[in-house]
Amino acid sequence: MDLKAYLKEKRSIVDEALERVFPEPDGPAADVVRAMRYSLFAGGKRLRPILCIAGAEAVGGEGRAVLPVACALELIHTYSLIHDDLPVMDDDDLRRGKPTNHKVYGEAVALLAGDGLLTEAFRVMSRMDAYKDVKPQAVLRVISLVAEAAGYCGMVGGQTVDIQSEGQEVEPALVAFIHAHKTGALIAASVTAGSILGGADEDQVAAMSAYGENIGLAFQIADDILDVEGDREAMGKDVGGDAQKRKITYPGVLGLEKSREAQKGLVSQGIGFLKRFDHRADPLRYLATYIIERKR
Amino acid sequence: MDLKAYLKEKRSIVDEALERVFPEPDGPAADVVRAMRYSLFAGGKRLRPILCIAGAEAVGGEGRAVLPVACALELIHTYSLIHDDLPVMDDDDLRRGKPTNHKVYGEAVALLAGDGLLTEAFRVMSRMDAYKDVKPQAVLRVISLVAEAAGYCGMVGGQTVDIQSEGQEVEPALVAFIHAHKTGALIAASVTAGSILGGADEDQVAAMSAYGENIGLAFQIADDILDVEGDREAMGKDVGGDAQKRKITYPGVLGLEKSREAQKGLVSQGIGFLKRFDHRADPLRYLATYIIERKR
Repeated sequence: MDLKAYLKEKRSIVDEALERVFPEPDGPAADVVRAMRYSLFAGGKRLRPILCIAGAEAVGGEGRAVLPVACALELIHTYSLIHDDLPVMDDDDLRRGKPTNHKVYGEAVALLAGDGLLTEAFRVMSRMDAYKDVKPQAVLRVISLVAEAAGYCGMVGGQTVDIQSEGQEVEPALVAFIHAHKTGALIAASVTAGSILGGADEDQVAAMSAYGENIGLAFQIADDILDVEGDREAMGKDVGGDAQKRKITYPGVLGLEKSREAQKGLVSQGIGFLKRFDHRADPLRYLATYIIERKR
Repeated sequence: MDLKAYLKEKRSIVDEALERVFPEPDGPAADVVRAMRYSLFAGGKRLRPILCIAGAEAVGGEGRAVLPVACALELIHTYSLIHDDLPVMDDDDLRRGKPTNHKVYGEAVALLAGDGLLTEAFRVMSRMDAYKDVKPQAVLRVISLVAEAAGYCGMVGGQTVDIQSEGQEVEPALVAFIHAHKTGALIAASVTAGSILGGADEDQVAAMSAYGENIGLAFQIADDILDVEGDREAMGKDVGGDAQKRKITYPGVLGLEKSREAQKGLVSQGIGFLKRFDHRADPLRYLATYIIERKR
């Protein structure tokens, strides 16, 4: 299959849906909406929404039917980037080649824009009129799953340990914990949520979740490697930032070679969990490889 | 009725439910859970959860059946206080007589604790197994309502304008906008959500929402007045902070007398919307008055 064309098509479906979710800024609080839109439309890959759509389609569901959740996942991802870039966290000035949110809107509005995006994600997911042929019980299950992956048992927990471990000597098990939580959990939830809404049975849901956990961790290792040897232009930000900030990374803890091996092992394990699925899971198979071969 | 006894009883039911929601901190990310619990159990009045329970009981529903949403409202309120106290926002050192979250856990963990509480609120609301005799459609409607009240159309929007207006000359309409959004919206959503889960019909839901909007705005005006003439000991923080920070307040814009009048008018209007309800709405009637007569 032509993954590039697939990604382009799905990305444009997601972008259109996100435009519908977010109104043009208006009224006294327009600035925070402007700030939310600024980061939301700053050129993200829409990986999580695409995984959600691909997860639904892999089990015979309709991709468009899961768009509210696909959009919500991108809102949550975007909020996490805004908060992560704040001076009290990673203190980054550039993201995807553009000034970070707080550099443009100030720290207070950036903080609130992140809060607003996270909150809006749950509003978008909970509006039943936005779905077609989806049971309310399935929507509630997905909201719970996404909240768990984004909260202290997932992303927020991973971010906490990440920040607290900077500059310290850590065991390989801890870097795996950080990466699986700060990045892996939401990626796994994306594909799992898509499969649930697409009508997967429980075995299929478990397989999707296992696939997602593996490629989610691989994705963050790839991020670490790109930070070591990526191209500044393609990345839209300075490389080498992790080492400068003494962040905990796979290359830092295990070295580049072992990180590449871990990454490849995770991707092939991830693809292995898709055995029970037919050709409709091909995008997920290709996405797994794309995740570690991307240039940004 | 004995409102004091009523508040005490409901508060202890809410506190017990919150304890069940939050585990003891454990694992690598224990610090963020510790930080979340620190602010959650710092002596809040539990006003929003109690309004939610009272809203359910007023329409013949069971208070205990709405506890997941009652707890979620307190998680959202607590997150907003933690983020609000951060140096980039109000920069407060004391809250309810104790050091603010970031003073104890540092700014990064406080930021993440807020994010974690907000996220957890939606997980708590979406778990159907926590409810009894409540339809999934009603739960989804409540999640949507609460998210709207907490997000850029409500609290986050109000906070944005609040922060941006500091030190400026504003029209009375703008201070009403700020207060109705930053505080009123979530208070209105609390009682409305309770009534929806309690089985209210659409007329009752509309009346509850109107009651909530009125007392929500009155609540924030009362906060402003307490900041001018409240007692430091009862408040658990320094008074006069609003004027020092040149915050937009009702007393600042309209003067103390007119603020008191506005407050009283709102409370009696709010109680007026309860006409169609019987004695089971008495707690809501007493709560409306309590809101402007409280000492903290």
